[in-house]
Amino acid sequence: MEFREVVRKRRMVRRYQPDRRVPDEVLDTVLRHATRAPSAGFSQGWDFVVLTKPEERQAFWDATTDPDAAPDSWLAGLQTAPALILCCSHKDAYLDRYAEPDKGWTDRDEARWPVPYWDIDTGMAALLMLLTAVDEGLGGLFFGVPPESQAAVHETFAIPPARTVIGVVALGYPAPDRKSPSLKRGRRGAEQVVHHGRFGQHDRL
Amino acid sequence: MEFREVVRKRRMVRRYQPDRRVPDEVLDTVLRHATRAPSAGFSQGWDFVVLTKPEERQAFWDATTDPDAAPDSWLAGLQTAPALILCCSHKDAYLDRYAEPDKGWTDRDEARWPVPYWDIDTGMAALLMLLTAVDEGLGGLFFGVPPESQAAVHETFAIPPARTVIGVVALGYPAPDRKSPSLKRGRRGAEQVVHHGRFGQHDRL
Repeated sequence: MEFREVVRKRRMVRRYQPDRRVPDEVLDTVLRHATRAPSAGFSQGWDFVVLTKPEERQAFWDATTDPDAAPDSWLAGLQTAPALILCCSHKDAYLDRYAEPDKGWTDRDEARWPVPYWDIDTGMAALLMLLTAVDEGLGGLFFGVPPESQAAVHETFAIPPARTVIGVVALGYPAPDRKSPSLKRGRRGAEQVVHHGRFGQHDRL
Repeated sequence: MEFREVVRKRRMVRRYQPDRRVPDEVLDTVLRHATRAPSAGFSQGWDFVVLTKPEERQAFWDATTDPDAAPDSWLAGLQTAPALILCCSHKDAYLDRYAEPDKGWTDRDEARWPVPYWDIDTGMAALLMLLTAVDEGLGGLFFGVPPESQAAVHETFAIPPARTVIGVVALGYPAPDRKSPSLKRGRRGAEQVVHHGRFGQHDRL
């Protein structure tokens, strides 16, 4: 598909066809593209845990949701996804990389970093997965794992403590769903978010 | 261009043809695509300050580099970029959004967030700019603004204090340059970063 069309078509898919699994070759392309995300110092401090078997996915939902509460419609839709990819960032990979001789921040001081590029770069990898899903005729959704569920997810999937699950990419073939109520907010157009030369200057001079 | 080709061709461009400006229509496409990044709760807490005039770009370099030190080859290359886009994240937009009735986190407590999605989403917007540059026959580079330069950049471009400049997208037509020494590290392939069912399980069972 043309790049522009992929960008235009991408949206968060909130319900999937439950009986259509994601073909292995599609998953492989999605994950290979994720490894082409940029990263500070080429640190590549990311790992992806792929859950495709029903029992694996159930273990994820068990670790992150209340078994005594009926799922709301958002969660019920999301639970139809045939594949979940846990996106893990690894801060230490960045601190180690920038302590190498060509970078030289041997103190490994986190205060040198304006923002957590380990999380941002892993997020870029997640976006490449979402875009690739569209290119392959599927859909995806990126959602977070709340702080109070991180420990259970780490334990369930043997994720080392130094990793942070920055979010999960759900993948599958889209089923009809309702639009997200968030869309009522409207998109902030370029005339609002683009500033020319200085903040607040919205016209090109 | 085909999406797959854009993904395959994207690399960080470290030197630009200094006498070829970025056409306005290309910049508009780059920025419009940025506004199509996903965001938690459709918060869209991002702003982009575009610097294309020589004096604007010089003001950025003055704010972020030592005027008494000769630029190293990395900086000298980067300073040839005819366009710089400062990518600003806005945490408050997220805290406000999730305090709305349909989300209901009225305490605006940051501890509810496992990672700073304001920075991650703005990073996704930056990646869409880099990919769009490739689609348009240009190249780009994403680089950070160190903590000690944030105040000067904010002041120079009238950026409100509540924004964080998560990084800058440089854009232009590529000129020949040396490969980044970081590439010697090699790409972490899918066989290393992909785990099936649990962390450390690299074979698909």
